[in-house]
Amino acid sequence: MNDRSSDGAPFGDGDLAPGTRTIHDVARLAGVSIGTVSKALNANGRLSAETRAKVLKVAKAIDYRPNDLAQSLHRARSMTVGILSNDSFGRFAFPIVEALERRLFDHGIAVFMCNATDDPMREQRHIAQLLGKRVDGLVVTARRADRRAPIEPAARGLPVVYVFSQVENPDALCLLPDDEGGARLAVGHLAALGRRRIAHITGPERFEAVRLREMGWRKALGEAGLRPDSSDCRSGQWSEAWGRDAAQALFSRRRAIPDALFCGNDQIARGAVDALREMGLAVPDDVAVIGFDNWDVMVEAARPALTSVDMNLEALGREAGASLIEMMGGRALKGVRRLPCSLVIRNSCGARGGAPKGENDHE
Amino acid sequence: MNDRSSDGAPFGDGDLAPGTRTIHDVARLAGVSIGTVSKALNANGRLSAETRAKVLKVAKAIDYRPNDLAQSLHRARSMTVGILSNDSFGRFAFPIVEALERRLFDHGIAVFMCNATDDPMREQRHIAQLLGKRVDGLVVTARRADRRAPIEPAARGLPVVYVFSQVENPDALCLLPDDEGGARLAVGHLAALGRRRIAHITGPERFEAVRLREMGWRKALGEAGLRPDSSDCRSGQWSEAWGRDAAQALFSRRRAIPDALFCGNDQIARGAVDALREMGLAVPDDVAVIGFDNWDVMVEAARPALTSVDMNLEALGREAGASLIEMMGGRALKGVRRLPCSLVIRNSCGARGGAPKGENDHE
Repeated sequence: MNDRSSDGAPFGDGDLAPGTRTIHDVARLAGVSIGTVSKALNANGRLSAETRAKVLKVAKAIDYRPNDLAQSLHRARSMTVGILSNDSFGRFAFPIVEALERRLFDHGIAVFMCNATDDPMREQRHIAQLLGKRVDGLVVTARRADRRAPIEPAARGLPVVYVFSQVENPDALCLLPDDEGGARLAVGHLAALGRRRIAHITGPERFEAVRLREMGWRKALGEAGLRPDSSDCRSGQWSEAWGRDAAQALFSRRRAIPDALFCGNDQIARGAVDALREMGLAVPDDVAVIGFDNWDVMVEAARPALTSVDMNLEALGREAGASLIEMMGGRALKGVRRLPCSLVIRNSCGARGGAPKGENDHE
Repeated sequence: MNDRSSDGAPFGDGDLAPGTRTIHDVARLAGVSIGTVSKALNANGRLSAETRAKVLKVAKAIDYRPNDLAQSLHRARSMTVGILSNDSFGRFAFPIVEALERRLFDHGIAVFMCNATDDPMREQRHIAQLLGKRVDGLVVTARRADRRAPIEPAARGLPVVYVFSQVENPDALCLLPDDEGGARLAVGHLAALGRRRIAHITGPERFEAVRLREMGWRKALGEAGLRPDSSDCRSGQWSEAWGRDAAQALFSRRRAIPDALFCGNDQIARGAVDALREMGLAVPDDVAVIGFDNWDVMVEAARPALTSVDMNLEALGREAGASLIEMMGGRALKGVRRLPCSLVIRNSCGARGGAPKGENDHE
């Protein structure tokens, strides 16, 4: 122990992974002290070029890898961050987390993944574990029903980014998709294609995303010189069954039949498209339909394939990674940032004039 | 540095996370040396009960958390494992990883998440990063098209578990769902319900899962005294479109019309159910249908809701976690282990006699 600490390599390397060579092996084989090995590998301290070369050669020959844990203690950076996710379903969290992990990995940072799944006690224990691991930052992601309470480490000065998740604290950085903007893209597109009565079928009102998308629907109608009619907006569930039921109700009316539907998600849109087909209405000729999420499984299986708003979750994940790196570098970032959505055109909106007949209607 | 190392607390705690109290704060406030704090917290070395109590009181009062990195060096265990995933889609990997993470967390082990997404160079860099972090073990999970090459650390003695992923190396531990058994459950169930011509529509032959499920279909037919007919087995894609096309072909035949369909996944089953409805055939009265995966989004949206084989991915994840912990404890585990699937009964197979009319056929 003394010889480790007296020559500037106080941390040793512990021989933690079975089969992994240690700094001791390098020292023994090179015939130098551990301190000398440390100096040679870290390129610091006074050392002859010859000795340095000898040490590096031995280290390479036995495939010695410096113990990153020891280096972490040394440089006061663990080069790790924690991700706390409450999205047990994974559909939204996964693309975000993947892009985030990729961005951080490119900066040499490893990611601890924690699934708290809406259990506050478990979340607390996860945070304690991550603080014990001396993470350099935290990312919190979630399903978005309501705003959540800020997590405790934010108050302790640890960089925290909320992505696809939002807290009341104005000092927190929250990255979200621009739901309202996405809705305006979709509804503006339908209006530009000449649709004049654009209805909206969406999910439960308790979701902020539902309220924002409805606002986008209203604004885009106004911008197109159309008047939103409250009877054209139906809020319910995030399911295909709800999409079918709501479409049946809207299109069984005696009058004021819509010529377009903007749906709050792709499942609703798919249910609506099925209901329209079964009512003998052609999509997009009689009714143009646009969904939200651009979820491959849904948009591609729908008949016709769905035009849909993409929240660009990968971009959101990359941005979360970049922001966290900036904050770890000392920059203070805060506030709610909404990243743009984009519109992915397929056959259900009528913008693709040349869709082969039969693809749009199998009956 | 010297006073740290000379009294048995060589690692310090580095004050890594901003705002986190360090061992130095505890020592200063308790009026003792850092070595004394270390002895008190680790309950080792000679120390009066009074001194120990004083240190613990101060540590608690200022919310001091021992630096887990330093402890990791100390006990030659990092209490971390890495998960390498190649399933960029996430649908299969996510439930496995979540259950695995939960199991390991309950043992105080944190999980590094790495997405290699079929890029061998990136995977190598991830493995190097994880070895640098001195992980105690690795889990490899993937989409299952083909067997993959074993990863390098297995040869170095680091515990590795392959889950939903398989390698040729007979010394590797591979945990997989029992695809053949799952198929036998489904087909046996249809036969027990009195179905006599049970066809099979499935995914691409290059997937081992496709070959095993087809074998299960053949064996279960044999066990029920039925004769598998090669014209009743159609291999194609994992999509709804393929399910529709294959069902249309099978049920447009002049004779030998099946009275049941076992499908290789839920998307195929859903497409088949749609095609059958559009051909005027009632599910389950005319044709009983069973899918595979028990993917909530698909099985619940299908009309009628799909009976499906569940691969019990959470159980697979838990088992992977438990196996890794055993291996980290020194037990040698190897070979291919297949965990049982189960059958989840809904309305498409006809076992639920009392399904309300109209739920099964919306047309």
